[in-house]
Amino acid sequence: MAPGPKHLTGDQAGISDFINKFDIFLFDCDGVLWTGDHLFSGTVETLELLRAKGKKIVFVTNNSTKSRSDYQKKLTSMGIPSNVDEIFASAYSSAIYIARILKLPAPKNKVYVLGESGIETELKSEGVEFVGGTDPAFRRDITPEDYTGLADGSLLDENVGIVLAGLDFHVNYLKLSHAYQYLARGAKFLATNTDSTLPSNHTFFPGAGSISIPLINMTGQQPIALGKPSQAMMDSIEGKFQFDRKTACMVGDRLDTDIKFGLEGKLGGTLAVLTGVSKKEEWEAEGAEVIPHYYVDKLSDLRG
Amino acid sequence: MAPGPKHLTGDQAGISDFINKFDIFLFDCDGVLWTGDHLFSGTVETLELLRAKGKKIVFVTNNSTKSRSDYQKKLTSMGIPSNVDEIFASAYSSAIYIARILKLPAPKNKVYVLGESGIETELKSEGVEFVGGTDPAFRRDITPEDYTGLADGSLLDENVGIVLAGLDFHVNYLKLSHAYQYLARGAKFLATNTDSTLPSNHTFFPGAGSISIPLINMTGQQPIALGKPSQAMMDSIEGKFQFDRKTACMVGDRLDTDIKFGLEGKLGGTLAVLTGVSKKEEWEAEGAEVIPHYYVDKLSDLRG
Repeated sequence: MAPGPKHLTGDQAGISDFINKFDIFLFDCDGVLWTGDHLFSGTVETLELLRAKGKKIVFVTNNSTKSRSDYQKKLTSMGIPSNVDEIFASAYSSAIYIARILKLPAPKNKVYVLGESGIETELKSEGVEFVGGTDPAFRRDITPEDYTGLADGSLLDENVGIVLAGLDFHVNYLKLSHAYQYLARGAKFLATNTDSTLPSNHTFFPGAGSISIPLINMTGQQPIALGKPSQAMMDSIEGKFQFDRKTACMVGDRLDTDIKFGLEGKLGGTLAVLTGVSKKEEWEAEGAEVIPHYYVDKLSDLRG
Repeated sequence: MAPGPKHLTGDQAGISDFINKFDIFLFDCDGVLWTGDHLFSGTVETLELLRAKGKKIVFVTNNSTKSRSDYQKKLTSMGIPSNVDEIFASAYSSAIYIARILKLPAPKNKVYVLGESGIETELKSEGVEFVGGTDPAFRRDITPEDYTGLADGSLLDENVGIVLAGLDFHVNYLKLSHAYQYLARGAKFLATNTDSTLPSNHTFFPGAGSISIPLINMTGQQPIALGKPSQAMMDSIEGKFQFDRKTACMVGDRLDTDIKFGLEGKLGGTLAVLTGVSKKEEWEAEGAEVIPHYYVDKLSDLRG
């Protein structure tokens, strides 16, 4: 039987060993640093403590609607000092994957986007061409001419080789019909992330997974997902920051995304916090498969 | 090994025995009577032949956007004489199920509709109250006030006890968010049908299943489906027409919906036609599970 995670809360020596063991900390945000619009007390001081000890900090989020710059504004609005280069969001991860890993040959490398402006900003930053997204031409009802033009292909951009599905607050039948046609004609299927829900206002709203799942159901294809726990995101992070995985620790509140992400990425450590979704009963349960290396009751317990 | 289906094309005696064996024929429409907007030659004469022999005809369709009356107009426009009482569509099937089988106690029996006017017409015909549907108040972007009002319930109708998801050409984030909140608060989850695609213009568009699947993914709940092959639809048909299942035959082009529907309903017969989706190689394949009793190359082969 595998030993359970080490509980660091109140263990001064354990905390000290833990912090000394790692050079880089990857942080999930919601449920770890804050919940909703409430910043947990001690968050800023804990990040400051790690920075003072020379640790690298990366904020890793599945939020696909925001660019890194948008997300930095959010961190600032929560009172958390940050640098845009410390931010890794799934829109950016997707752009990196398309531009630097997938590298489809031009001109058939255009992206049809289901999503918001954050995705567009990141695609532009990597020089990737795209259609769809926030283009107002797609924000309308489907017409008889659309059925004809989608079926015969005359309304489609022949250079689209990729469909990228993220959270789109303006999703509609016309956009889904376009995405389906591109996939049916052989476009690669990517998703920024596949979270079924978006936590907000202490309840749930449709997440990015609600945008891709009709297309999965229609085509029988699974997308390559670029958010946690997909290792495509870990590869992108490593490619950018160039670190030794043994000296990296993933910090998060969800076993099925954050902790799984760190474990499958074979990081030196994973730290669960109990201020979000997952409870310690989950990893203590018979047959639990995702077990963190460490846990604290709350992030600020690392201040000792 | 089970014997394969009897091939009736060109078998005069076999056709005669087949027709004599049944009193009621349930017809799938697209792929059987017509394809797209092309009526198969001999369709009208074949139906006429059956009627002349005193057979009851029922048109059974998963189309959820049309009421029976709308669908009769479609049959008429295709050149097929019909009576509105011969039509059984999934919107009607859903209304029957809600009003006569589910019968939730008032006032908590209102329906939140994701769908078009055909569903509304049929719910009205059964005296069922509903919200959502084609109401223009839901055809807009989500706002910050919606997040708050959906989370605290102030924007929800407290009498909604059912969410009914059909094909909605005007689906959007706001509508899905409402449906999710009702389900999260305990509403029953129904779907007119769960076809992932809608065949049109010789290709596919998103089907009713594309509307319900984000909600299935978000809640982990499966809806009760009221279209083929769900036996809830067969029960509704039997409840309305009062026939002996041994004397009924289901005619269709799809093994996974039409033929399965007839077999699971333990009808006396199932007749596959080869003018639509399924090919005979499917039931001839090793391990095939859905095997019709009879097949013809095309429906009009029944004219002998």
